[in-house]
Amino acid sequence: MKVAVVMGSDSDLPVMKETISTLDYFSVESFVSVTSAHRTPDKVREFIIKAEKQGCEVIIAGAGMSAHLAGVIAAHTNLPVIGVPMKGGALNGVDALYSMVQMPRGVPVATLAIGKAGAVNAGIMAVQILALKYDGLKNKLAEYKKDLAKSIEGIDEKLKKVGVEKYLQEKK
Amino acid sequence: MKVAVVMGSDSDLPVMKETISTLDYFSVESFVSVTSAHRTPDKVREFIIKAEKQGCEVIIAGAGMSAHLAGVIAAHTNLPVIGVPMKGGALNGVDALYSMVQMPRGVPVATLAIGKAGAVNAGIMAVQILALKYDGLKNKLAEYKKDLAKSIEGIDEKLKKVGVEKYLQEKK
Amino acid sequence: MKVAVVMGSDSDLPVMKETISTLDYFSVESFVSVTSAHRTPDKVREFIIKAEKQGCEVIIAGAGMSAHLAGVIAAHTNLPVIGVPMKGGALNGVDALYSMVQMPRGVPVATLAIGKAGAVNAGIMAVQILALKYDGLKNKLAEYKKDLAKSIEGIDEKLKKVGVEKYLQEKK
Amino acid sequence: MKVAVVMGSDSDLPVMKETISTLDYFSVESFVSVTSAHRTPDKVREFIIKAEKQGCEVIIAGAGMSAHLAGVIAAHTNLPVIGVPMKGGALNGVDALYSMVQMPRGVPVATLAIGKAGAVNAGIMAVQILALKYDGLKNKLAEYKKDLAKSIEGIDEKLKKVGVEKYLQEKK
Amino acid sequence: MKVAVVMGSDSDLPVMKETISTLDYFSVESFVSVTSAHRTPDKVREFIIKAEKQGCEVIIAGAGMSAHLAGVIAAHTNLPVIGVPMKGGALNGVDALYSMVQMPRGVPVATLAIGKAGAVNAGIMAVQILALKYDGLKNKLAEYKKDLAKSIEGIDEKLKKVGVEKYLQEKK
Amino acid sequence: MKVAVVMGSDSDLPVMKETISTLDYFSVESFVSVTSAHRTPDKVREFIIKAEKQGCEVIIAGAGMSAHLAGVIAAHTNLPVIGVPMKGGALNGVDALYSMVQMPRGVPVATLAIGKAGAVNAGIMAVQILALKYDGLKNKLAEYKKDLAKSIEGIDEKLKKVGVEKYLQEKK
Amino acid sequence: MKVAVVMGSDSDLPVMKETISTLDYFSVESFVSVTSAHRTPDKVREFIIKAEKQGCEVIIAGAGMSAHLAGVIAAHTNLPVIGVPMKGGALNGVDALYSMVQMPRGVPVATLAIGKAGAVNAGIMAVQILALKYDGLKNKLAEYKKDLAKSIEGIDEKLKKVGVEKYLQEKK
Amino acid sequence: MKVAVVMGSDSDLPVMKETISTLDYFSVESFVSVTSAHRTPDKVREFIIKAEKQGCEVIIAGAGMSAHLAGVIAAHTNLPVIGVPMKGGALNGVDALYSMVQMPRGVPVATLAIGKAGAVNAGIMAVQILALKYDGLKNKLAEYKKDLAKSIEGIDEKLKKVGVEKYLQEKK
Repeated sequence: MKVAVVMGSDSDLPVMKETISTLDYFSVESFVSVTSAHRTPDKVREFIIKAEKQGCEVIIAGAGMSAHLAGVIAAHTNLPVIGVPMKGGALNGVDALYSMVQMPRGVPVATLAIGKAGAVNAGIMAVQILALKYDGLKNKLAEYKKDLAKSIEGIDEKLKKVGVEKYLQEKK
Repeated sequence: MKVAVVMGSDSDLPVMKETISTLDYFSVESFVSVTSAHRTPDKVREFIIKAEKQGCEVIIAGAGMSAHLAGVIAAHTNLPVIGVPMKGGALNGVDALYSMVQMPRGVPVATLAIGKAGAVNAGIMAVQILALKYDGLKNKLAEYKKDLAKSIEGIDEKLKKVGVEKYLQEKK
Repeated sequence: MKVAVVMGSDSDLPVMKETISTLDYFSVESFVSVTSAHRTPDKVREFIIKAEKQGCEVIIAGAGMSAHLAGVIAAHTNLPVIGVPMKGGALNGVDALYSMVQMPRGVPVATLAIGKAGAVNAGIMAVQILALKYDGLKNKLAEYKKDLAKSIEGIDEKLKKVGVEKYLQEKK
Repeated sequence: MKVAVVMGSDSDLPVMKETISTLDYFSVESFVSVTSAHRTPDKVREFIIKAEKQGCEVIIAGAGMSAHLAGVIAAHTNLPVIGVPMKGGALNGVDALYSMVQMPRGVPVATLAIGKAGAVNAGIMAVQILALKYDGLKNKLAEYKKDLAKSIEGIDEKLKKVGVEKYLQEKK
Repeated sequence: MKVAVVMGSDSDLPVMKETISTLDYFSVESFVSVTSAHRTPDKVREFIIKAEKQGCEVIIAGAGMSAHLAGVIAAHTNLPVIGVPMKGGALNGVDALYSMVQMPRGVPVATLAIGKAGAVNAGIMAVQILALKYDGLKNKLAEYKKDLAKSIEGIDEKLKKVGVEKYLQEKK
Repeated sequence: MKVAVVMGSDSDLPVMKETISTLDYFSVESFVSVTSAHRTPDKVREFIIKAEKQGCEVIIAGAGMSAHLAGVIAAHTNLPVIGVPMKGGALNGVDALYSMVQMPRGVPVATLAIGKAGAVNAGIMAVQILALKYDGLKNKLAEYKKDLAKSIEGIDEKLKKVGVEKYLQEKK
Repeated sequence: MKVAVVMGSDSDLPVMKETISTLDYFSVESFVSVTSAHRTPDKVREFIIKAEKQGCEVIIAGAGMSAHLAGVIAAHTNLPVIGVPMKGGALNGVDALYSMVQMPRGVPVATLAIGKAGAVNAGIMAVQILALKYDGLKNKLAEYKKDLAKSIEGIDEKLKKVGVEKYLQEKK
Repeated sequence: MKVAVVMGSDSDLPVMKETISTLDYFSVESFVSVTSAHRTPDKVREFIIKAEKQGCEVIIAGAGMSAHLAGVIAAHTNLPVIGVPMKGGALNGVDALYSMVQMPRGVPVATLAIGKAGAVNAGIMAVQILALKYDGLKNKLAEYKKDLAKSIEGIDEKLKKVGVEKYLQEKK
């Protein structure tokens, strides 16, 4: 199982690394690339062809500001395209969010939260999509959700045990 | 192949109808339901269980204003959840967009454009996801894209033939 | 007298601590919990049942980003639910504010200011609600308001006595 | 049981009527008044004194644009104050929302959705508050929630029976 | 002298017609096309090649919502690209504005006002650019500015002569 | 006593008429002009010189969209300049508001509400300024405020007498 | 000549100090006070009475978040009221700006830029108002404007002399 | 070949330096000036006359907050005017963006991204405009685009060679 993870600039890498780690957790391989809709438009096409040839089944694109990357990819493939808006620039990611989510009829980009939460969730969404086909992922997703729940429950228990003041002190 | 299409109110139906028609075009069955995260929370769970039992592989949720429906569903399933923000209310759908797209780590909602464009694209995205598993959809998607292109090309040709003035007159 | 104070993540605790201190000031007990609408949806229900059993009469929920927690709680209880939007994330709390305040007809969340001011005021609002039933709180509220006034009046007097320059120097 | 319902202008009445009808449904009396924080500031005080004398236990204020009314009332009473931002003006109610919800520490206004949804919910919130003291309201609230649920369930059933096309035709 | 005028959909034509009329006023020919960055990406490239071959020296692109068209064109040409954000959709053109104006370093789109004012000004900006090379346009631009001034001056004179009341009556 | 009332286009006149009527109510003369910061920049200077020569003591400028008119006038005079942002255009007056209110240090524009409320208040603000010098205006302002209060009080009384239902019926 | 300068909290003092220094530069006395529309509403009235008795002719109010202070003062006086929105809080001053500028018909607050630029300009605007009555201020305003211009011209000259690189180095 | 680069304050210089370096890269001379639409309006005119006399063929203006500079210049010249909104102030450059881009019919400002990306792109846009007339620039632009592409391709290659972890470590 393979997912393409592409971003418009290497300044997006510290955020998109979260996508890669998330996929890794589910033993889904990442085909990582940095390529720009505006600076290397031909490479974007080559990237899509390579990604499809390599057997990538989902494409995740992170981009900031005008953030056309995900939309341009969606124009050239029928694989599901997931977009992660980056926070950079004066508008704090609202520009990238609007540019990704407001795609016209017929060419969707499945958009997630601005920044790191979106990058993690892009990984999860890709795994949920792959799980329809690869049964093994279903259990892993169920486990992941349980772990997520357990971690919150652990926090709740600890907080109830030690109290607010002590909890905050120990967290520092 | 089946996709669940759920909305928070029947006032969303004229918009979400676009999702159903789009799925229909690809011969994907819709399991349609009206249920509210806030008014019928127990029914939401029943809906998810039914949807899964019926073999729905993607869940599409349309909701407006605080628009918690998609997120609440995502909390209870590992199927991919797609969100369509509705335009209603004083904030024109920005509230619903933010509420759907800004989900926390671990529980994604794949969010699409506000209103009808988003409703159509929710259908396309669901088909793109299903196409990973059901090969027959791949050709249909390719055809859909070609038809989309052809329709624009037809417009372009006609415009070039009749000129701007006449084109606008005939369109009225 | 008891109020439930719940938040979606322990990263909200430094802010929601203000709610707890405020309730404490009025000798109102807090039932504090960390639980997530999306990661531990079943625990949210357990929390509500526990809160009601323990005699909590108001529920205060702090959450950030998509911030569904308060709305999900309101769907399952008839106790008054107060929401405090957190500032975290790229949208600075506007997402959480819209998600809490724009609830549909029939299921209100009484929303307060983003961040610490809202957390303090959630405590005050809970006390104002309880004061309708518990007469003792009325005097305390009156005193609180007097103290609030006195503190501003003290600042005003000091400023008039020492002048702007010196006041700012001493404040550093 | 009595609740004060006040608004800044009679142009707010078609919206605030929803609050009054909602209270009416629960047999809670309304003390209705039109008074302006800026044009009749002294009358605002008289209104608060009258409201308290008449035994009002919650004050609901609807206002648009700069919408200071709820905050000014909160400054003069220790009763819980609920705010409903009106949609009027060029900013579509965002101005009124921010002005109501962003109150400083110590003086909360419990803010609800912009426009009619907020007006209905102001009534429900007031009833939820009163229900802590007046047991009879508890059952009524439970019934109200059931009716709310039933109405959605009825819609869902009808939709499933007649199908999307016919449902939309009959609704027109 | 020739300018390419391209738009993403024929629903943009009633607005972009203003660009064409403005160019017409200056006897600058328009090469008009409807083509979509997402639905007909290959046609966009063909369009650019044709536009360059025909001797177009400026490209004006009108698009709404995610509005990637202008940016995608700018990626493939070194001609100056001017963008006109369309008002359509729930976000009233703010999405298109952000998507056009927030282009990354190295690939500019010269962005103008949302809607008709922007469409007229795209024509003027193109003429100002061409006037650097084609001296004849300089006088026409000077005349255009004079006419613009005269029309305002005429309004001012008439208003001073007939007075506000009568002016408004006659305007109806 | 004289006040200059200037606007960027005659489409602003139906709004700015409110300023003129308000000044008229206080027997303050208006020197009305239509002139544009961008289309007739030299006329703006002539207007300021004329306004000063005629003894205007305050300048009120209404403008929409980029709305530079008030700021440009403020750059050329030391008279107090009041700005009224117009609602026209895709951004509903937020553009004009920001452009007027966010003036740099040293060159203020006293900005009022978007649209008609702002236009009335520009008149009142001008009268409040003139009242510092012309004592006769003080009483008129006091009367105006009383009338304002009386009109609200009249509404309140009528509403209390006839009730909500009948009030709304009669208002139609 | 005297101007009242009031703010809602001593955290506003570092910003509002700019108003006081500006007035000082013009030898206009400041009557400085800290008082809150919500915490010390009665003191606000006392402040207004004192300010009027002391001969203050303009009132400048700085406030953040819901920022009702300026509007509440305007309700109780016929002196011109100038508002300075503070930047504090999650909404960066947009809340305070909207709350001040969107006042209803009849009760204006002359609003200036968010933060320090607005605080300086509040002082200038007050002086421009006073200059209508106190002729001596006219020359000072003219001088101030000249100094403002000279300072920019000096910067321009130095930049032209030393060049961009050196200018930036020396500025550090 | 010469381009005028003007800004409203020397605090804009660290950003606008990017425009100058970009022009420099293309051997296009810059005529740099600091001058303010509001503080030195007469100098703005002198600047335009000088710029035109010196043979500048494009004018680039950077300004923040109300940012009238670019619009005021456009009112007085027929050269193409490019605007760069600065990020400074509480509104993060949205004020400057709206003020520049929303120019009325007839007087365009070609607006680019907020801050440094916009400053670089203003240089590129100016060169693209000049390249219509000065053939030598065409090759340089083509080279620039190739370099831009190469730099991204180099990043992509390195990332593929060393992997994400190592890439991020070496970048620090």
